[in-house]
Amino acid sequence: MPFELKILGSNSANPVYNRHQSSQLLNIEDNFFLIDCGEATQHQLLRYKIKFNKINHIFISHLHGDHYLGLVGLLSTMHLHGRKKDLILFGPTGLDEIITLQLKYSETFLSYKIIYREVETEKAQTIFETDLLWVESIPLKHRIRCSGFLFKEKPKRRRLNKLKLPEDISLANIVSLKNGQDVMGPSGELLFKNEEVTLPPKKSRSFGYCSDTIYLEENIPQLSSVDLLYHESTFLDDMKDRAKVTYHTTALQAATFALKANVKKLVIGHYSSRYKDLNPLLLEAKSIFPDTRLAIEGEVISVADE
Amino acid sequence: MPFELKILGSNSANPVYNRHQSSQLLNIEDNFFLIDCGEATQHQLLRYKIKFNKINHIFISHLHGDHYLGLVGLLSTMHLHGRKKDLILFGPTGLDEIITLQLKYSETFLSYKIIYREVETEKAQTIFETDLLWVESIPLKHRIRCSGFLFKEKPKRRRLNKLKLPEDISLANIVSLKNGQDVMGPSGELLFKNEEVTLPPKKSRSFGYCSDTIYLEENIPQLSSVDLLYHESTFLDDMKDRAKVTYHTTALQAATFALKANVKKLVIGHYSSRYKDLNPLLLEAKSIFPDTRLAIEGEVISVADE
Repeated sequence: MPFELKILGSNSANPVYNRHQSSQLLNIEDNFFLIDCGEATQHQLLRYKIKFNKINHIFISHLHGDHYLGLVGLLSTMHLHGRKKDLILFGPTGLDEIITLQLKYSETFLSYKIIYREVETEKAQTIFETDLLWVESIPLKHRIRCSGFLFKEKPKRRRLNKLKLPEDISLANIVSLKNGQDVMGPSGELLFKNEEVTLPPKKSRSFGYCSDTIYLEENIPQLSSVDLLYHESTFLDDMKDRAKVTYHTTALQAATFALKANVKKLVIGHYSSRYKDLNPLLLEAKSIFPDTRLAIEGEVISVADE
Repeated sequence: MPFELKILGSNSANPVYNRHQSSQLLNIEDNFFLIDCGEATQHQLLRYKIKFNKINHIFISHLHGDHYLGLVGLLSTMHLHGRKKDLILFGPTGLDEIITLQLKYSETFLSYKIIYREVETEKAQTIFETDLLWVESIPLKHRIRCSGFLFKEKPKRRRLNKLKLPEDISLANIVSLKNGQDVMGPSGELLFKNEEVTLPPKKSRSFGYCSDTIYLEENIPQLSSVDLLYHESTFLDDMKDRAKVTYHTTALQAATFALKANVKKLVIGHYSSRYKDLNPLLLEAKSIFPDTRLAIEGEVISVADE
């Protein structure tokens, strides 16, 4: 089952060199989570032939325009497509007010309901949960309130080893085995010892999204050992003073964070418009954390489940 | 001197088939007027290598998202480019409130001043004037308040016929001749009879922008004989009932308007997403008004000055 991150926008403030502003689409077992929504995100979804109405949850990190100015256009297009399903929108204080004001002046009464969930940006919290996963906020430090998001699959059930089981095993027994229990017969005798007829669960995967922020070691425990970390890397390290003043991170710092948090793979993005060639950012990060890759629009980064 | 309309966005609500939402850039003698600013207008300006800071006046017809959702992004990018010049922004009630709210939450203090000019959408008014031109609002009827814009060059001065004048003619005499006066000598004798040494002024050109609106004959007098008329043509005429309900115009109606107003050239656009092929819209309009062309993004429509 997929756990895939699709890059829709990779640049910071200005949309130059055909790079768009921040947006990513995370697919966890066919649940589609849109993370940030810079201007023209709907154009990018169209370009990559992603059906808008697959998206039921949108997460906005903060209210700098390059992270959310595509939202009202996307919400309007979903309305024009006749969407009926509720849409859950996570974001900081003010996002609902901005949307409400724009819908008021356009006299738009959406065909669906937006359920707004305000995200506390000062501390890590579980902000969303399903049978499949949890989403936690990640407290970031930027010029304005800003939160990252950590998506974690819940522990999965054991898998049946079909080679070791009869074809006519009952549904009740299957459930017991998947839940890790042994199966007993009517007289209390052991029919199937769990560990002999099942395989370990598939891996629970995780993705952390950190944008925009200064280098922030206190978030290392929360992001420890995640499978995939996206960390903004606006600047090369020779501009670390500029990074600090603007509350951004350098590629070297992002890689240092990834190393210390022992993550499996790092993706960097949110490039400053001063970098037409992104290779220096990649090389700088790889010098510290080899399993780094660039966020390149249209590319998909997959996490395997075993 | 140029009088050129550049099409930046040509589609209505949805940005499909690589067509963007409404935006046009009018260049009148190197004064650049941006008219409407759908989402991703800044991307289009970049694509066509138009320097943002050439634009000092922006006109927004109404507050449906496909006509203004690119504005805050563009204003922010102008700020990031360090713009200092004032920017004059024309639009309906609510536009300043929307911008102010978004700048508040992003904690952006623009490097330049926006001078907001609220446009009365119920009647035609002169909303802007320079030495060169007037801009009038055009009252449109749409689902929400909506105004078109009419750009009219002022009458121009007579031109010197250099073949008929000495090279050492004084600046004061040049000014008199350009203003249509004869030039008298110190004793009151006629030195140059104006009509013998000057040529008629170059033509004063005009452009009318009508989007979005139902077919509205009462605007014919205001737009009578304009050189270039852009009129929205969302639908083919077989959907005229749908056009009426949604307060839009058909290609046939736009052409009828152009014919009755005796305009020189018609440009149609704001295409419904149902039309991938635009030729039927063009053919329908041409059947009534032959000098019609489609708004095609990236194309420039020029009006000659003689």
